[in-house]
Amino acid sequence: MSQFAIGIDIGGTNTKFGVVDRNGHILVQDRMLTNEHETVQEFIEDLHKKLDPMIKDAGGTDKFVGIGMGAPNGNFYTGSIDYAPNLKWKGIIPLASMINERFGLPAKLTNDANAAAVGEMMYGCARGMKHFIVITLGTGVGSGIVIDGKIVLGHDGFAGELGHTIIRPGGRLHKGTGAKGSLEAYASATGVRETALELLTRYPEEESLLRNYSINELTSQTVYECAIKGDKIANEIFEFTGEILGEALANFVMFSSPEAIILFGGLTKAGDLIMNPTRQAMEANLIQVFKNKVKLLFSDLKEADAAILGASALVW
Amino acid sequence: MSQFAIGIDIGGTNTKFGVVDRNGHILVQDRMLTNEHETVQEFIEDLHKKLDPMIKDAGGTDKFVGIGMGAPNGNFYTGSIDYAPNLKWKGIIPLASMINERFGLPAKLTNDANAAAVGEMMYGCARGMKHFIVITLGTGVGSGIVIDGKIVLGHDGFAGELGHTIIRPGGRLHKGTGAKGSLEAYASATGVRETALELLTRYPEEESLLRNYSINELTSQTVYECAIKGDKIANEIFEFTGEILGEALANFVMFSSPEAIILFGGLTKAGDLIMNPTRQAMEANLIQVFKNKVKLLFSDLKEADAAILGASALVW
Repeated sequence: MSQFAIGIDIGGTNTKFGVVDRNGHILVQDRMLTNEHETVQEFIEDLHKKLDPMIKDAGGTDKFVGIGMGAPNGNFYTGSIDYAPNLKWKGIIPLASMINERFGLPAKLTNDANAAAVGEMMYGCARGMKHFIVITLGTGVGSGIVIDGKIVLGHDGFAGELGHTIIRPGGRLHKGTGAKGSLEAYASATGVRETALELLTRYPEEESLLRNYSINELTSQTVYECAIKGDKIANEIFEFTGEILGEALANFVMFSSPEAIILFGGLTKAGDLIMNPTRQAMEANLIQVFKNKVKLLFSDLKEADAAILGASALVW
Repeated sequence: MSQFAIGIDIGGTNTKFGVVDRNGHILVQDRMLTNEHETVQEFIEDLHKKLDPMIKDAGGTDKFVGIGMGAPNGNFYTGSIDYAPNLKWKGIIPLASMINERFGLPAKLTNDANAAAVGEMMYGCARGMKHFIVITLGTGVGSGIVIDGKIVLGHDGFAGELGHTIIRPGGRLHKGTGAKGSLEAYASATGVRETALELLTRYPEEESLLRNYSINELTSQTVYECAIKGDKIANEIFEFTGEILGEALANFVMFSSPEAIILFGGLTKAGDLIMNPTRQAMEANLIQVFKNKVKLLFSDLKEADAAILGASALVW
């Protein structure tokens, strides 16, 4: 009997993977950089090199039920990644069949944020919930929507691209999509960095600890460190980001009326600094029937775990 | 055996009702003004006065399975109307139980736009579709969302309030909700009138046929009549409304990836004048995976019919 599954989470920056048993324990895991592989073939080769010893240690492919994967724009119906703005590999990538061929195991693919939502539903703070939305705040902004206990896939499998909804019409350009004012242009890691640069440029006279960092070091982590030291611009970055995120969340609530919205990923490390303005803006933009009803939560799963567990759950 | 159902559609302006048989034929129908009744008790009394002869003509209450109703903010789970911004009756109205008591028939209630969506699914252009969204463009802007063949009700039964999503942050005030920049503030009958007044004020030198109408006469119908005569401001009203509506639709597509969006209600009488800018703005705001996929349709059901049929379908 197959005892194990492989879960692979492909993010814009990191790819995390591991071997999972039927009880949701991750026996072994590792990670690698996603975009250092120019082609998807190189990526799969490297992944195989790293996973093969793990598979052998667990008793060989016979012990595995299959490989579950989450990836940006991953499509559960077709098993392909289609036009992912945050990945180097362009066009339509038939990832599930390529992985199946290379590993000799059944492979299933879904949106990375859908995989995270499955992880939350099975092992995280959405246990027992039938209606919730997971928003992943990482390199990009992704979403996994659950209605009546099921992931919303939509007509073609691409539902749940809430990071690309327009929240500031005519606003900041998203370099990957060409859209102006999408949520992802503000609430992603790149978005936070851009907000930092905008504010530092707008207030050239304002002293800020952020001026001591290189542009690449301007992450939600460093902004957080400056903000808790009382840095005015750093605090304003979270206020601004939370305001936009909260407005977007209000729109999502008025679509599917979830019990909870679960925030996941890098930005959540800022804790109350991001939670408070987000909650305030969300509530301010809800009509009466939704006010003070929706739980706004941070995921309590470790980031790598949730994604690997969720992805692996696709093949059980 | 019960052969008939009553369908009641309560809108911000009109209440439409009729007797429907199992094959979806409306045997008899009528309408009355919703907001001329100061209290919901008076409303129910008047409704009873008009429906009672219809029930008797059909053979009495024994022949009826029940009463299905659609209303703004109608909640399927609780049977009540909660805080409807477009109705005079404030607070929480336990309409289903009040109707049940007055008529002596089982009564079910849902969102008016959900009822319209059920009507489209059973008798309209959404027949055979599992994933679609109906947007009702009337006194207000409502929505009925269908995913996997089921109306999305959400955690508490209030899902699908897309007219209240914010599409122009900080924009036009919605007098009913206090929100700024919600879709309903632009794409409703009131919204179109307000756009007309704004444009007529902005271009005082520009001649326009619209200047011959009183404010109350400025409806999407009169704007349409002026627009087809080549009136510049009238045409700009539809361009502007379509641009905002299309942007909002793009956001909805990126949530649930429907096969189709069906537009319903007064504004659709403008035909291509509203369809073209709406479609263009929707497509322009979609990311690659969604482009040129979603059918944007006008309902082909008669307005009163769809709502009555959909409402009646709740009790079969």
